[in-house]
Amino acid sequence: YRVMYGRYTQELGVYAREEAARIREDGRHRSPPLKLLEYEKGRCVRCRICAVHCQRFLMSRVGEDWIFLILLGLVMALVSFVMDFCIALLLQAQKWMSGGLDSNVILQYLAWVTYPVVLISFSAGFTHIVAPQAAGSGIPEMKTILRGVVLKEYLTLKTFVAKVVGLTCALGSGLPLGKEGPFVHIASLCAALLCKFMSFFGGIYENESRNTEMLAAACAVGVGCCFAAPIGGVLFSIEVTSTFFAVRNYWRGFFAATFSAFIFRVLAVWNRDEETITALFKTRFRLDFPFDLQELPAFAVIGIASGFGGALFVYLNRLIVQFMRKQKTINKFLMKKRLLYPALVTLLISTLSFPPGFGQFMAGQLTQKETLVSFFDNRTWTKQGMTEDFNYDSHSAAWKHPQANVFVILVIFIVMKFWMSALATTLPVPCGAFMPVFVIGAAFGRLVGESMAAWFPEGINTDGIIYPIVPGGYAVVGAAALSGAVTHTVSTAVIVFELTGQISHILPIMIAVILANAVAQSLQPSIYDSIIRIKKLPYLPELGWGHHEKYNIRVEDIMVRDVRYITLNSTYRDLHEILLIGNLKTVALVESAESMILLGSIERAQLQALLTQHLSRERRLEFIRDRADAERKRVSVVSTPSSEEGGQKVNHEVRFQISTEESSFTPARPISPKPLKPALKRTSTAEKNIEIPTSPHDSGIGLKNLLCARPQTDAMERVCVCVCVCVFQEDPDAEDDMTLGEIEEWEEQQLDEQVNFNSCKIDPAPFQLVERTSLHKTHTIFSLLGLDHAYVTSIGRLIGVVSLRELRKAIEGSMTVKGVKVRPPLASFRDSGTSGTSSESEATELHKLWDRHTSISIPREHQPNTSDSDEKSQ
Amino acid sequence: YRVMYGRYTQELGVYAREEAARIREDGRHRSPPLKLLEYEKGRCVRCRICAVHCQRFLMSRVGEDWIFLILLGLVMALVSFVMDFCIALLLQAQKWMSGGLDSNVILQYLAWVTYPVVLISFSAGFTHIVAPQAAGSGIPEMKTILRGVVLKEYLTLKTFVAKVVGLTCALGSGLPLGKEGPFVHIASLCAALLCKFMSFFGGIYENESRNTEMLAAACAVGVGCCFAAPIGGVLFSIEVTSTFFAVRNYWRGFFAATFSAFIFRVLAVWNRDEETITALFKTRFRLDFPFDLQELPAFAVIGIASGFGGALFVYLNRLIVQFMRKQKTINKFLMKKRLLYPALVTLLISTLSFPPGFGQFMAGQLTQKETLVSFFDNRTWTKQGMTEDFNYDSHSAAWKHPQANVFVILVIFIVMKFWMSALATTLPVPCGAFMPVFVIGAAFGRLVGESMAAWFPEGINTDGIIYPIVPGGYAVVGAAALSGAVTHTVSTAVIVFELTGQISHILPIMIAVILANAVAQSLQPSIYDSIIRIKKLPYLPELGWGHHEKYNIRVEDIMVRDVRYITLNSTYRDLHEILLIGNLKTVALVESAESMILLGSIERAQLQALLTQHLSRERRLEFIRDRADAERKRVSVVSTPSSEEGGQKVNHEVRFQISTEESSFTPARPISPKPLKPALKRTSTAEKNIEIPTSPHDSGIGLKNLLCARPQTDAMERVCVCVCVCVFQEDPDAEDDMTLGEIEEWEEQQLDEQVNFNSCKIDPAPFQLVERTSLHKTHTIFSLLGLDHAYVTSIGRLIGVVSLRELRKAIEGSMTVKGVKVRPPLASFRDSGTSGTSSESEATELHKLWDRHTSISIPREHQPNTSDSDEKSQ
Repeated sequence: YRVMYGRYTQELGVYAREEAARIREDGRHRSPPLKLLEYEKGRCVRCRICAVHCQRFLMSRVGEDWIFLILLGLVMALVSFVMDFCIALLLQAQKWMSGGLDSNVILQYLAWVTYPVVLISFSAGFTHIVAPQAAGSGIPEMKTILRGVVLKEYLTLKTFVAKVVGLTCALGSGLPLGKEGPFVHIASLCAALLCKFMSFFGGIYENESRNTEMLAAACAVGVGCCFAAPIGGVLFSIEVTSTFFAVRNYWRGFFAATFSAFIFRVLAVWNRDEETITALFKTRFRLDFPFDLQELPAFAVIGIASGFGGALFVYLNRLIVQFMRKQKTINKFLMKKRLLYPALVTLLISTLSFPPGFGQFMAGQLTQKETLVSFFDNRTWTKQGMTEDFNYDSHSAAWKHPQANVFVILVIFIVMKFWMSALATTLPVPCGAFMPVFVIGAAFGRLVGESMAAWFPEGINTDGIIYPIVPGGYAVVGAAALSGAVTHTVSTAVIVFELTGQISHILPIMIAVILANAVAQSLQPSIYDSIIRIKKLPYLPELGWGHHEKYNIRVEDIMVRDVRYITLNSTYRDLHEILLIGNLKTVALVESAESMILLGSIERAQLQALLTQHLSRERRLEFIRDRADAERKRVSVVSTPSSEEGGQKVNHEVRFQISTEESSFTPARPISPKPLKPALKRTSTAEKNIEIPTSPHDSGIGLKNLLCARPQTDAMERVCVCVCVCVFQEDPDAEDDMTLGEIEEWEEQQLDEQVNFNSCKIDPAPFQLVERTSLHKTHTIFSLLGLDHAYVTSIGRLIGVVSLRELRKAIEGSMTVKGVKVRPPLASFRDSGTSGTSSESEATELHKLWDRHTSISIPREHQPNTSDSDEKSQ
Repeated sequence: YRVMYGRYTQELGVYAREEAARIREDGRHRSPPLKLLEYEKGRCVRCRICAVHCQRFLMSRVGEDWIFLILLGLVMALVSFVMDFCIALLLQAQKWMSGGLDSNVILQYLAWVTYPVVLISFSAGFTHIVAPQAAGSGIPEMKTILRGVVLKEYLTLKTFVAKVVGLTCALGSGLPLGKEGPFVHIASLCAALLCKFMSFFGGIYENESRNTEMLAAACAVGVGCCFAAPIGGVLFSIEVTSTFFAVRNYWRGFFAATFSAFIFRVLAVWNRDEETITALFKTRFRLDFPFDLQELPAFAVIGIASGFGGALFVYLNRLIVQFMRKQKTINKFLMKKRLLYPALVTLLISTLSFPPGFGQFMAGQLTQKETLVSFFDNRTWTKQGMTEDFNYDSHSAAWKHPQANVFVILVIFIVMKFWMSALATTLPVPCGAFMPVFVIGAAFGRLVGESMAAWFPEGINTDGIIYPIVPGGYAVVGAAALSGAVTHTVSTAVIVFELTGQISHILPIMIAVILANAVAQSLQPSIYDSIIRIKKLPYLPELGWGHHEKYNIRVEDIMVRDVRYITLNSTYRDLHEILLIGNLKTVALVESAESMILLGSIERAQLQALLTQHLSRERRLEFIRDRADAERKRVSVVSTPSSEEGGQKVNHEVRFQISTEESSFTPARPISPKPLKPALKRTSTAEKNIEIPTSPHDSGIGLKNLLCARPQTDAMERVCVCVCVCVFQEDPDAEDDMTLGEIEEWEEQQLDEQVNFNSCKIDPAPFQLVERTSLHKTHTIFSLLGLDHAYVTSIGRLIGVVSLRELRKAIEGSMTVKGVKVRPPLASFRDSGTSGTSSESEATELHKLWDRHTSISIPREHQPNTSDSDEKSQ
């Protein structure tokens, strides 16, 4: 169902770009009429000229990147601001409701609980009805899309609406959910929609590789305008979504994210929320002496603990999803009542955080934002001497319980929020995990900070001056470390600087984040990779580093040796068999079965088109006409009545057509595919040399039988069976008077003909690897070029093929999740046999080629007749 | 002289890695003796066992990346700290000298001037003698090296010593020079040397692609420990040195740079320079209200002006270099007296900055660091009400001149420093341009800030509260903007945050930096690209963005159609002619001249080896022996005396061997090449299937004549002519009794034989492009894979070749420095002819192949004898 593209569609993208440029060029050439207009008189004409000029100027400008980026930034800033505003309203409404009912605890509880349940249910229901793919974070999908996989339904207007509305409701419910991941998705949606919109003005937008670049910038904008953190946004989006990053895109990201963050904060100033542009969670730590060297071990401890915590979070999250999936009875029940699961989870979480209930032990009345502000506060909550005269502001007061210690409350908060967040992020609503994890990390940091403050109540003595400990600094470190561990990124450090507006703790934060990453990366995949695995998205896993045994695996160990190929002198029957076996996306074209010299690759759909065309009704009618002509001639000679064998006519028949791939090359397209990438739209013009049969009744009946027999192995692919009942219109100039038997006979006969590749689009240079290419290098090349498969050749001879699947297997084989390293059997073999054998085999290979060549050249030298024919053909 | 590597040496790198792994594996298998040892008794043995265990553990650990990165960070932090210490000492000495002589102005002047002249002369002389390649920034060279070009003399111990000593002296002189660029180079040198050193322990270090990864991390470390800015360092190094960045390297950079910055700052704390770890140029701006929205236009003005200024700086710098080069008389004179130019420039600059002289109008007594501290100061220098009670500290006092206005002094400072910096950075000493530009930018920002403070003396009124203007904030913005404009980077913003320890001005800084970049990038290349062009380093220029006409250029427009190739049935004479023509690095191997099917590529040196081996003395002696055997048989039958034609014996002759490439494959290596990349060392083992003749006298005399005739077109390549006078030792088991005429005849005869490629290393899958690949895509692929050349194929047939040179020409042709865009003639042609023609030509191409194929298959079908022989050979 998802078409992976490699080299080929990129070519098409380039083609589309050229085509667009040509169209625009044409537009320019059409300018003379304007000059003619100028000779006419009258005011109206001048106005029109002016308007045309303006329009043309706008047109030429609209194609520029920076216009697009500014628009994107602007739109996203507005979206972010409006959403924040709505979320704040929703949260206030909850407080107001439960606050207004403080006379009756039960009523208060009902109000407190019903509100989020309704919101989450609405969010889940809305998302499910409008666009189910809007659920979840969106970063895993963006990662997959930027890898080069086309997941088109993830970038539609419907998804945009579902994501924005769903996210607003989900966050308004007060559950521990984040908005970072969804914002990355929303920004990408925005970019994709803007691209579509802008393509009305200039053709340059209809280009795939440019769209990918814009999507990369959009990811940065998403993070940037979510946290008003342009630099952190760019870095985070790079780390999270890319494998290889083009530095020339860097600029785009910075530009758009900065603009977006700027507008986002300016809106806040205009709305009188802020006096001027400052950070979202402004801190006021000391500048002159932010921390002491002796505090560094504590920061390191936070980092290491966060690493374990982050890995645990990812594990817990996956465990919950897998548990829900495995329990078939639960699963079935939940499938039927889709809104029940979200509602139950919300009920559980909001019951536990009900402020007069258990919530009093975990500051249940605070929103995420308030919690963070209280964590990042300078003042300690424990210091004995100051506890009394410490005028609690509303936020910090939540942490002061008459019965319980601050430490106990913090521990309860951390533990409860931990599983709550892991649970809440599995809900089928648009939600991210970054912010909840960030809050938990801050809580943990605060806990350590408060402990340190309790341990050194007088502060730390340095050179005679005593500096008190700032627990807020620890909270900042903890937040960066835990969110870094969960997402496997270092740039959370930068996000934290931008969020707090202070960079004074740079070294502790960097140290903690790096330690947390080191621990978490060795234990679990990142939350996004984990979701990619859960969702089984077609993504190439990352190579861990330091796994030296991967250098020992070579392409020859993992490649599929049994390559399907067609030769230049294949018959249509061979072609047909190839199409029956398996579900290859492309088929290799070799010179001959003996030489196996790789000439190119042909897409499956192209071959289908070839076959369909060859067995088409037109050709059959032509055949009938020719036969009739011959008959007539014969009749004119022999003069006997023509053969009118009684047989069922094939005019009214039901034909099946199965297409397993939604390729744009589908020969007969009953469901018109709406490609996301506008470049694909243009492929039809690109293929104008192929006469694609446009109505489904062109395919022969023999073809029908054969295509239906095709085994449907891949369960992932949605097979769209299109039953096209074609009531035949009377064709005026041709009469199809063949019987079924005759048709089959004709088709059998046609199948034995040699394939004519002239009207077929061949990829003349598919990517090639060598047997001895290492896994490491193969992975790099696949990631770099976004390949789907590569042929393995040895001195021009095709000997195997490696696709993403083999590569993924090999990587996961050599590095399983649990750290058990398995080497493919062949790799160990080679260690004992030295390289001498392989170089020998190389020589043998060449020998073969050599021998073959000389044997070919022998007739040329000794038999002048064949060499003549050879030369003539050149 | 510089060997560019593409795919092939990477293969070898992989091979080396495997080889190393194998050796280590072997080492492990050799463990049993240890166990045997345990059965022996005695204390000493136990100690030994323990030692061996420890050693083994260390060995296994030493191979890990993080050990390497920590070591690198540690070493670089120490180097940075010690250098800073020495530079501070040198600067103090100058002040002390001129301060001690304040009784006599002339003596003071002499002391002030002589000191930097001596230091710079020493630096230039030392650099010139020890390692001339240490001069200059080093970033352009690193950029080229990371692009994949081997510039081996840039990464030696000598260069390291020259760079460190030279840089210390140069910076100690007080000239406006920076240390950022050289630090990037020093860090890379450190990494290269550490790699070499570590390879004594574990073989895993002998790997090229790993070294490149380490070099990328080292660049980050260089910036990181120079400014104690780990994040900015990583980003700056990415922006400056990479085109495509592997995100998996990101982590490495962060890790090493953070560790390095940490140690660097901890050393300062231990040295009692600082109380705790803080930023280098700590600022104390207001946190609550850093700036007002109404100030933003001023920041934008700083950004735009900095953009123009940055472009002007790059232009001026290049102009000076080109002027010095063009003036041949000056040039000649300077070539003779190498130290004169630096001395004169130093004299000029230090005379102008002499504090009691003109220096009083440009704060000449302040060092760079003091200047920056004074610029970043919170307090305004102009505010009327406070001028009197403003207790000037020593630094700010320098800007207060009794006669001149602050504005005048700032303007003089900016103008003077501008040309001084541009001039000073052309000196042949290790020096960077970042810091001087940073200071000028700060001065400009301060100027704007002071102007704003003078314009709004009461500060800006917002909501009734009046906030005074902070000129230091403007200075920070200006510094980031100008350095960003000169280097074409956005990450200077991050460096500034880390340098000042404050992030409150994030939005103004980002806006200014982006505007400055936009302006500067449209006017001039970055300073590093400018130096790359001046030095003519083999680097691929970057594609500007938004140049749509590049989408119209295709590979077929720029490729070289006249490809040199050899076929499977080439004779040694063909091979020989190929070697004579031009200086190709690799030669394409095609199936036959008719089919032109590309089978692979062979390196020039391999072909030379083949030829040399074929005409070697051994083979000749064998021939003589065979002839003698035949003779003897004939003698035994006919019994006539053997032919003893009187001729000069060839035992004592002078043979020439010219090798224009320092390839490791050089058949006879009189000068043993010292490859930087340790991977190359191992190639000799990789090539053990090639019998490389080890002494120069193996080459025949005919070969000599022919090789000498080779035209030496490329002036860039240093031709090392090695005259090897080989006094022949008496060979016991063979006697070379052929005359020169006989030898020539024999060689002529040998040259007509078909080449036997069996012992030749063929790259079986050279990179292939298609005719219609766009320039944009070609550029991407070349940058991504670090290619040197790529073959253009059409359905397997070789039709052209594109090398870096063609690509560079095409890019520079379509986008010259001055902004004039030239399209290749063919690109405009294609616009009129639609895509129909090209698809037609594609079909024709296939037709040909098809026809050729059928003509080949005809004899197989009709003549069973040939097809039999064909099948047998398979």
